[in-house]
Amino acid sequence: MPLTERLLLGPGPSNPYPEVAAALVRPMLGHLDPEFLDLLDETSQRLRAVFRTENRLTLPVSGTGSAGMEACFVNLLEPGDVAIVGVNGVFGERMCEVARRCGAEVVRIDAPWGRAIDPQRLLDAQAASPRARLVAVVHAETSTGVRNDVEPLRALQGTDTLVLVDTVTSLGGIPVEVDEWGIDACYSGTQKCLGVPPGLAPVTFSPRAVERIGTRATPPQSWYLDLGLIGQYVGSARRYHHTAPVTMVFALHAALGAVLDEGLEAAWARHERVGALLHDELPARGFRLLAEAGHRLPELTTAWLPEGADDAALRKALLETYGIEVGGGLGDFSGKAWRIGLMGHNAREQNVLTFLAAVDALV
Amino acid sequence: MPLTERLLLGPGPSNPYPEVAAALVRPMLGHLDPEFLDLLDETSQRLRAVFRTENRLTLPVSGTGSAGMEACFVNLLEPGDVAIVGVNGVFGERMCEVARRCGAEVVRIDAPWGRAIDPQRLLDAQAASPRARLVAVVHAETSTGVRNDVEPLRALQGTDTLVLVDTVTSLGGIPVEVDEWGIDACYSGTQKCLGVPPGLAPVTFSPRAVERIGTRATPPQSWYLDLGLIGQYVGSARRYHHTAPVTMVFALHAALGAVLDEGLEAAWARHERVGALLHDELPARGFRLLAEAGHRLPELTTAWLPEGADDAALRKALLETYGIEVGGGLGDFSGKAWRIGLMGHNAREQNVLTFLAAVDALV
Repeated sequence: MPLTERLLLGPGPSNPYPEVAAALVRPMLGHLDPEFLDLLDETSQRLRAVFRTENRLTLPVSGTGSAGMEACFVNLLEPGDVAIVGVNGVFGERMCEVARRCGAEVVRIDAPWGRAIDPQRLLDAQAASPRARLVAVVHAETSTGVRNDVEPLRALQGTDTLVLVDTVTSLGGIPVEVDEWGIDACYSGTQKCLGVPPGLAPVTFSPRAVERIGTRATPPQSWYLDLGLIGQYVGSARRYHHTAPVTMVFALHAALGAVLDEGLEAAWARHERVGALLHDELPARGFRLLAEAGHRLPELTTAWLPEGADDAALRKALLETYGIEVGGGLGDFSGKAWRIGLMGHNAREQNVLTFLAAVDALV
Repeated sequence: MPLTERLLLGPGPSNPYPEVAAALVRPMLGHLDPEFLDLLDETSQRLRAVFRTENRLTLPVSGTGSAGMEACFVNLLEPGDVAIVGVNGVFGERMCEVARRCGAEVVRIDAPWGRAIDPQRLLDAQAASPRARLVAVVHAETSTGVRNDVEPLRALQGTDTLVLVDTVTSLGGIPVEVDEWGIDACYSGTQKCLGVPPGLAPVTFSPRAVERIGTRATPPQSWYLDLGLIGQYVGSARRYHHTAPVTMVFALHAALGAVLDEGLEAAWARHERVGALLHDELPARGFRLLAEAGHRLPELTTAWLPEGADDAALRKALLETYGIEVGGGLGDFSGKAWRIGLMGHNAREQNVLTFLAAVDALV
């Protein structure tokens, strides 16, 4: 099998922070070893710093970002609950599907792909359905490169409706303020701006979300993702639930250390600066930025291809000639747009220049 | 944070095969990169060799062994289905709980912990309930060190009842013959006899299990573990479902290569030989073997502690003085018995001698 190096400028995974390699080959520890439990505690503490929260129930779920999504829905919803979901891309759609499989009644608030969801529409939907169990929205839509405003949902703290936010593509790249924005449940993934290989889903739950989980009438339909049980392992009881993915936790611990050593605000500024450079440079090459101005993610740029460009042939050449991966468009954007990630360790000026030079050579 | 080396002789994780370290730090690839997809295909092919099956639907689920268990139940069961479950330890109990959360009616066939389940009792239960959707049993009970006989369940191939087997602690260590034994669905974990860090759950499904999944009246309650959708990614359609845990797949691929290079039968023989050595040596030190004779796992030995021995103090000293981890007893065995694993790369004579010497020094 070849060992090809790629510059991963797609929608994730990104190339991990350099600190991750040493962590992956740390000597293995048992999942109940006191040293591993200390490291897991420190990992949760680092996650709190990155989520900007004091939430006790903050941990890496043993699966990818989609497992984090499912963990949130299956623990917070019971059959018959109403869930209001903002949908302006693939991951909002996925939320609806996961909520339906929990037996929830889903109220969709749609916006066109490539445009942000007006948070007032989510608040209005909640006002019209005040017994809704939760309002869910994707902070950074990986399918469109759009940032949805989350902060205004803080108004729901005065209601019985929880706020659930997908930060898979935002955490570590742009500001996420779990406590300040009144987010009750939040999940992310490791392979984007956190600069870790894919495989874990950081999650955090507010005290009122924890209370909701503790007062369910029925156990969550998933045993594997049952946070009441998982909480007894990551918490002080240390009761075995499932075998933690030790090596991946080592990797997450190390990358979070790198992010916090740099400083979270500095990492946000780096993503902002590098993303802006790409946004500035693309139009001169015939690309048109796709996401709505004012709501463009610096860490994931979506752009319409130049007139007449052949998507598949170009991406193949980019990969095979220069070892650079970018993502194709999804849905209606398929064949017409690219998704260009500058995430985590890859959010560096050097990578923008390399990408642009390769595009200049090919287009 | 310290970087302590441990000799992991508990019920898992084991120390990975040496080939795994290089795989963990392979350059990252995207989950849709042609090179990664080739490697994933080869990993599935290696899993078929280890499961001894031709099953097309054979893949690593993106979670630990318990996610593999849940993947099997949520895909094969629908609400109201009858599931017959053999229970003689923690993992049989867990199967019942997972099946109940699928809305199934569970028929338990209990045997005392430490003794094997007579497979005829499972066959009789199916005869009494011929519309049962499945009969499930744990091949190697990690909580007791007992091997349950699976081969006689082949008789169920002539019925409408599927056979579901947990091989978390058996795969790669003792014979598992998916096709020859007529197993319809089988899950395992990576961190035991396969010698990989924890984090993936190899699974395989027979054509009739796949047909069952394809003719469900309702979608599985788990989106993350929906094998109809996952199959479209690992199969030729290559449709994105979730981001595969690339690094862990690299590790699994490498360890399976090591196992198959040694030869699966040779690996089984090594586990058998090394386990027998431990079984032979323990009684002279006051340990009494716990599992029923004739059904003792070589890769996981359970033994009653010598009269008057202090479980917690001994395991602490073993860990802190000699860096050796063993597992404590579960349930009624707590404080009274140990679980000693010789799994994967750790199934070597050297480790038996090291363990015994440490015990001699402490007891």
